[in-house]
Amino acid sequence: MHTAKPAPGRLLLVPAPLDFACDVLTDVRDSMPDSSLRAAAAIRYWVCENAKSARAYLGRIGAVHPLCAPLQSMHIQELPREVHKKGDHDGSFDARHLLAPALDGQDVGLLSEAGMPAIADPGSSVVRAAHDLGICVLPLMGPVSLMLALAASGMNGQSFAFVGYIPSTPAERVARIRSLEALALGSGQTQLLIETPYRNPALLASLLQTLGPNTRLATASGLGMPGQICRSANITTWRSSGWECDKRTPTVFAIGR
Amino acid sequence: MHTAKPAPGRLLLVPAPLDFACDVLTDVRDSMPDSSLRAAAAIRYWVCENAKSARAYLGRIGAVHPLCAPLQSMHIQELPREVHKKGDHDGSFDARHLLAPALDGQDVGLLSEAGMPAIADPGSSVVRAAHDLGICVLPLMGPVSLMLALAASGMNGQSFAFVGYIPSTPAERVARIRSLEALALGSGQTQLLIETPYRNPALLASLLQTLGPNTRLATASGLGMPGQICRSANITTWRSSGWECDKRTPTVFAIGR
Repeated sequence: MHTAKPAPGRLLLVPAPLDFACDVLTDVRDSMPDSSLRAAAAIRYWVCENAKSARAYLGRIGAVHPLCAPLQSMHIQELPREVHKKGDHDGSFDARHLLAPALDGQDVGLLSEAGMPAIADPGSSVVRAAHDLGICVLPLMGPVSLMLALAASGMNGQSFAFVGYIPSTPAERVARIRSLEALALGSGQTQLLIETPYRNPALLASLLQTLGPNTRLATASGLGMPGQICRSANITTWRSSGWECDKRTPTVFAIGR
Repeated sequence: MHTAKPAPGRLLLVPAPLDFACDVLTDVRDSMPDSSLRAAAAIRYWVCENAKSARAYLGRIGAVHPLCAPLQSMHIQELPREVHKKGDHDGSFDARHLLAPALDGQDVGLLSEAGMPAIADPGSSVVRAAHDLGICVLPLMGPVSLMLALAASGMNGQSFAFVGYIPSTPAERVARIRSLEALALGSGQTQLLIETPYRNPALLASLLQTLGPNTRLATASGLGMPGQICRSANITTWRSSGWECDKRTPTVFAIGR
């Protein structure tokens, strides 16, 4: 007897609220359109960075729309540890095996800890694998802290770059800040960067010391949370303002003119 | 008699669905969180690119949450024509007068035709003016086509650039594509670009002719609409696939490795 192969499922890219590892738990409906929450609630097969936080997020979705299966019977696969650390965009990790359920006809959800999967976070290897396997990729709408920060910076949003994390050793950090400033001032391309929250104060201090007086610096802290604050001014104003950046709140930094 | 000056209002950055100028009118709740729609419905003073399309969008919001004032009594200011064309990120346009209502204590909404204001669209002059005037800037959550496209591309999302529109004259376009490819392959920085929809087929043809066989190209067309499609493959696969890109659907292109 011949059994027809099922039509493949899709890979859905499922964004998450921006409150990961923060003190405040926001209402998921404040950052996600209902359609995205509904689509996520219908998925049983997941790929994520960390199964525990994935389950916690699915629990929050389940409080809004009934999940298609009990939490404990969800099928959750984690990206390997080495991918968390060095990223998975260099092609060295083959993620095709994670998409086996999709080849069997099931939709698979790719989940990030915060914001959009595969942006400033691992996951691109899974998306690439889906394309290579002929699996339809469907990005769901949700928050992206980098773009909220860029819009709120008042800097050039018609040409910009996200450079990720910059070195944390002082000398290398200063050199990198100088080269980003030269790029931003020379070409007009806004430069976006992030840092692990506990290093925010050190990065801010380094930016204020290194950047020129007329260069514009913006920060967006706690986006999507009650105390969120977006600042943007030239360095002279920053230096005289006494503005700080705490070591607990996720913050996006932007350098521009 | 002395009247105390009111506390200033805020500048809210209000995203819009991605269906602008498309045949399909989507449900605004499918791309915007309810909190953003609610916040937009409470705003009476607006800055936008085009008053007519702003009113049309406010009408769609009003169908979900009652607007704070009838449409015809909304206060809608347009960014000047020259800003539409050449952008407003170079500091030549002083937008402070557009924020007079905020200095009088009223919240002002900045609206884009599609997606997030001030990203791949004018508006940054208004945001910069708000910061300079000490007006609080609050970005609301909503769709950003560039980030949906980037996540769906499977390319490097830890380092990327958006370069806007590239030249449309063939020789200049080829030169620009070559330099973007060199950047993407050399540094691993994904390069995102857009085009006026009617030029999509010409841009795609030029990309397929110019890029090397192993370079990865991705397109995301009609994001947020029923027929949306995200493709990503190397140029060899693209050339043999017969995939097209129509001249009516907004499309984001990405070059990477």
